[in-house]
Amino acid sequence: MDTMEGLHRSQYCAEVSEADNGKEVVLCGWVERRRDHGGLIFIDLRDRTGIVQVVASPDYETVSFKKAEQVRTEYVLVVRGVVRMRDTDTVNPKMKTGTIEIRCEELRILNSSKTPPFYIEDNIDVDEKIRLKYRYLDLRRPEMQNNLIMRHKVKHAMRTFLNEHGFIDIETPELCKSTPEGARDYLVPSRVNDGKFYALPQSPQIFKQLLMISGMDRYYQIARCFRDEDLRADRQPEFTQLDMEMSFMNQEDILLLVEQMVHYIFKETLGHDVALPIHRMTWDYAMENYGSDKPDIRFDMKFTDITDLVRDTEFKVFRSVVDNGGQVKAINVKGYAGIPRRELDGLVEYVNAYGAKGLAWICFMEDGTLKSQVKKFLGEETLQAIGEKCGSQTGDLVLMIADKPAVVAASLGELRKEMGRRTNSIDENKFAFTWVVDFPMFEYSEEEKRYVAMHHPFTAIRDEDLDKLETDPGHVYAKAYDLVLNGVELGGGSLRIYQQDIQQRVFKAIGLTPEEADQKFGFLLRAFEFGAPPHGGLAFGLDRMIMLMLKRKSIRDVIAFPKTQNAIDPMSEAPSEVTKKQLHELHIQLEEDLVKK
Amino acid sequence: MDTMEGLHRSQYCAEVSEADNGKEVVLCGWVERRRDHGGLIFIDLRDRTGIVQVVASPDYETVSFKKAEQVRTEYVLVVRGVVRMRDTDTVNPKMKTGTIEIRCEELRILNSSKTPPFYIEDNIDVDEKIRLKYRYLDLRRPEMQNNLIMRHKVKHAMRTFLNEHGFIDIETPELCKSTPEGARDYLVPSRVNDGKFYALPQSPQIFKQLLMISGMDRYYQIARCFRDEDLRADRQPEFTQLDMEMSFMNQEDILLLVEQMVHYIFKETLGHDVALPIHRMTWDYAMENYGSDKPDIRFDMKFTDITDLVRDTEFKVFRSVVDNGGQVKAINVKGYAGIPRRELDGLVEYVNAYGAKGLAWICFMEDGTLKSQVKKFLGEETLQAIGEKCGSQTGDLVLMIADKPAVVAASLGELRKEMGRRTNSIDENKFAFTWVVDFPMFEYSEEEKRYVAMHHPFTAIRDEDLDKLETDPGHVYAKAYDLVLNGVELGGGSLRIYQQDIQQRVFKAIGLTPEEADQKFGFLLRAFEFGAPPHGGLAFGLDRMIMLMLKRKSIRDVIAFPKTQNAIDPMSEAPSEVTKKQLHELHIQLEEDLVKK
Repeated sequence: MDTMEGLHRSQYCAEVSEADNGKEVVLCGWVERRRDHGGLIFIDLRDRTGIVQVVASPDYETVSFKKAEQVRTEYVLVVRGVVRMRDTDTVNPKMKTGTIEIRCEELRILNSSKTPPFYIEDNIDVDEKIRLKYRYLDLRRPEMQNNLIMRHKVKHAMRTFLNEHGFIDIETPELCKSTPEGARDYLVPSRVNDGKFYALPQSPQIFKQLLMISGMDRYYQIARCFRDEDLRADRQPEFTQLDMEMSFMNQEDILLLVEQMVHYIFKETLGHDVALPIHRMTWDYAMENYGSDKPDIRFDMKFTDITDLVRDTEFKVFRSVVDNGGQVKAINVKGYAGIPRRELDGLVEYVNAYGAKGLAWICFMEDGTLKSQVKKFLGEETLQAIGEKCGSQTGDLVLMIADKPAVVAASLGELRKEMGRRTNSIDENKFAFTWVVDFPMFEYSEEEKRYVAMHHPFTAIRDEDLDKLETDPGHVYAKAYDLVLNGVELGGGSLRIYQQDIQQRVFKAIGLTPEEADQKFGFLLRAFEFGAPPHGGLAFGLDRMIMLMLKRKSIRDVIAFPKTQNAIDPMSEAPSEVTKKQLHELHIQLEEDLVKK
Repeated sequence: MDTMEGLHRSQYCAEVSEADNGKEVVLCGWVERRRDHGGLIFIDLRDRTGIVQVVASPDYETVSFKKAEQVRTEYVLVVRGVVRMRDTDTVNPKMKTGTIEIRCEELRILNSSKTPPFYIEDNIDVDEKIRLKYRYLDLRRPEMQNNLIMRHKVKHAMRTFLNEHGFIDIETPELCKSTPEGARDYLVPSRVNDGKFYALPQSPQIFKQLLMISGMDRYYQIARCFRDEDLRADRQPEFTQLDMEMSFMNQEDILLLVEQMVHYIFKETLGHDVALPIHRMTWDYAMENYGSDKPDIRFDMKFTDITDLVRDTEFKVFRSVVDNGGQVKAINVKGYAGIPRRELDGLVEYVNAYGAKGLAWICFMEDGTLKSQVKKFLGEETLQAIGEKCGSQTGDLVLMIADKPAVVAASLGELRKEMGRRTNSIDENKFAFTWVVDFPMFEYSEEEKRYVAMHHPFTAIRDEDLDKLETDPGHVYAKAYDLVLNGVELGGGSLRIYQQDIQQRVFKAIGLTPEEADQKFGFLLRAFEFGAPPHGGLAFGLDRMIMLMLKRKSIRDVIAFPKTQNAIDPMSEAPSEVTKKQLHELHIQLEEDLVKK
């Protein structure tokens, strides 16, 4: 193999332009492909910026031409040559460098390559496990390189904005204390402290609040977090979060600052102007109209509550739901009245999966008639009234679900999204943001027969609701907020309680005695005794944000070395077995049934 | 307690200046101290920028004055008031805001505080464990805030420089595969994959090399790393590292780029101009002259090899060392000939601790005579010759050690540093950088009776030494380099082997068969088969760098929430015991003797 001795790369491949015509350049990269034509050898040389065409000929330089003859796909080259304009008939308008080429004066082979297991190109149809096993080749594909470079740019934009706004980037520990709250911890056995364990952080929540107590005033961190949950398509055992906290600001201050940050990030990285101020809705409104606290508002199709219209019906199915405190809600699907019966049956199955026992429908046919499987129960007049309330027009389809509010929300919410997709109502190029604010502070746990904190018990309460803490906890709202993009929660946060009297009242509301609270939240509560400032913050899921910005379907496409859904890295084969000596040093052993295996 | 309702902070406390005279400001912060004088109340209000004086009077506003009377140290306030010039006799030239004060129009108490366990001020003399237990109060102290803010600025400067030089910030996994090489791993049991374990990364070394193979070209990451070693004063179980790797660059390119980066960081954060180019010395030179591969070159006092002068002496101690392949080296301590005998005896003990069996000395007295405990063995003539070779003058002290080269290096190296301190030769305000280059590729392991890689077996070899790989591995040097600041290794790295034939020869030199190599380095070696580019990089210990920049004695002072030397966090009490259920889910249990405890 050759070396680069004496050669220095002059620029990246796709940075060569017509302005360099006649100049000598030195380029490094990988062989995308090689063609032999008319006694010449054409090599497409690729680096992270793109491709440039190199032409070798025995007339230019013999030794290099001989080397060019040995070149195969993915060989690593350094090429010295002169930039020249291509003949007009060989110009490639699809390539950034399509009007120029490099007349090869010197070519050195820095390394050879085996044939890769898949093509190094975009939109390949390869089993993801193979891509992950050969991740270093998968990451050579331009779309994957672009994903990682975009991720870099997003982080850079975040940091630039936050640095300019007085935020201090502070690292918090990753070897933390295990807490019984929240998701399952990843544990790390301690060698020095026999029988004890660290936990990897689920978030830096407690540390960032301590930093506010320490007067750091504005904190941020792009932090690695860990949750040992059963993995879904959009979850990873480790994930990255933009974590922020600030003091002496109210909710309005925080939301406006975050909006500016989001605007800055989208502008700097995608050139996209996020419309400010960002739309806001309350949690109640979101649940009532979209059945979700993360509504996709790229399309409308909001819920209509038709409970009142069917309250006095003879139709037993609706009647019994309403009598038992349930509700009946509908969505209007524009121009979908012609839906085949088989598709309707499929929709019934679709909502079944989300807990709804049935789905009623009305087709407002083009000829002015209406069809409905519940026509004989509800009568045409009621159906027309429903249509009117839903704003239905000729050609529209109304879909109705009657059930407990939670079931209506979940099933009709999912149905709404599904109908949005089927009617092509979702503009995939759109970025539709909304704040969801005024989350309930508590939710009633049927299991525990008590109120529990919806977010966490340190979440601040709306001033106007403080009086209801003891009398009506179900109607106490929190100073909590989520930022939603295209129906996905980008991030969320809250103001925190910093006053001990209110904190004690909240603990009481969720049935915690001061002793129990101390046991659970000990050192944080003690820290609050030494002059905690008013503070609040939020956290953004970075992986998800970048996935949405890049319109990718999987967060694994925006993470350099992700794990599979079984939390395995097929490339390095982590996790793996370790030696008994290693375990012994950590004072642990495998459970006996495993040892016997 | 009051709220901030209707008030918005106008600026930070120490940002108020004479330019604001007559303006209304709203300030937030903690009560540094309160003084009552002449019917007025003076409050020093502190935030992360510093202190400003607030004056409350019943003449200004009665309600606020009453509140000011309740105020204690570390209470949290918001103050609205008008900036005014102080009377000339109350100007405080030591304070940034010492010429102005705030006439208090409104004062609200946002939170009270218990009396802190120590004063919130610099240079406190408090047991570090107490400081760590109340870290949120320790971090309120200006020097600690400054440390964290400086750390933030250093990271910002690093990122700015690297972003501008085409480096991509890429996150690598923290749930990795355990490898038998290097230090002890922290392990993380896998719940989903019974009996298997992840390891926390000791460094992103393998991943950054894979990123080069993937064509990312220039990578960096400010990465969290973990080593389960026995802790010393300057070690933490988790630490932060600036990790870099780049392709198609030679060693000279890399060193020059890193020098520019270091210059940029010191300039941007400390306003200090690092003299470029940074001094360079070979590893051989460093070991010969300083007995260390991280020499402190803030002062001279280099070693002088006097072996030849004593080779033929009758003095048995020296003679037998020399005859057995040892050496005799000396340092000259200027103006220290008057050293008391007791101090000399102490120095003997000092070098004993580093393995030296003895220490010979010569005092060149002011009266022209010389004193030495070995005068009768070596004779005055030889002692004078030694003094001449060491450049000694009247009044100087020469200290000599005779031993195996490794012992001479270690003990005389430490003695050199100690004498540097005792003679006040070390300018604590100096930043003395040096590159140490040309590390030996191998060192002979007496234990394993074979050569082992000094850095790691992927380190590239100097081109001129390739021929010696099989014939003279002891004289093969690596393309490896360390950056040393004031006698501390700031960072280090190397070019990597990217060609398989050379890699195989290196494996052979350290006695690894291809099968063994595959077993140990499997997937990385396979990755190298698909077109690895020439590449290299380095890593900087961030904690240590910031400690040195800030002239702190402990890295714990530049880490927000560090662990003690027993790897404990006294604040959160991590690590802690966990439940049997948690362990059972992870398929592990405590070793039986622990359970019985």
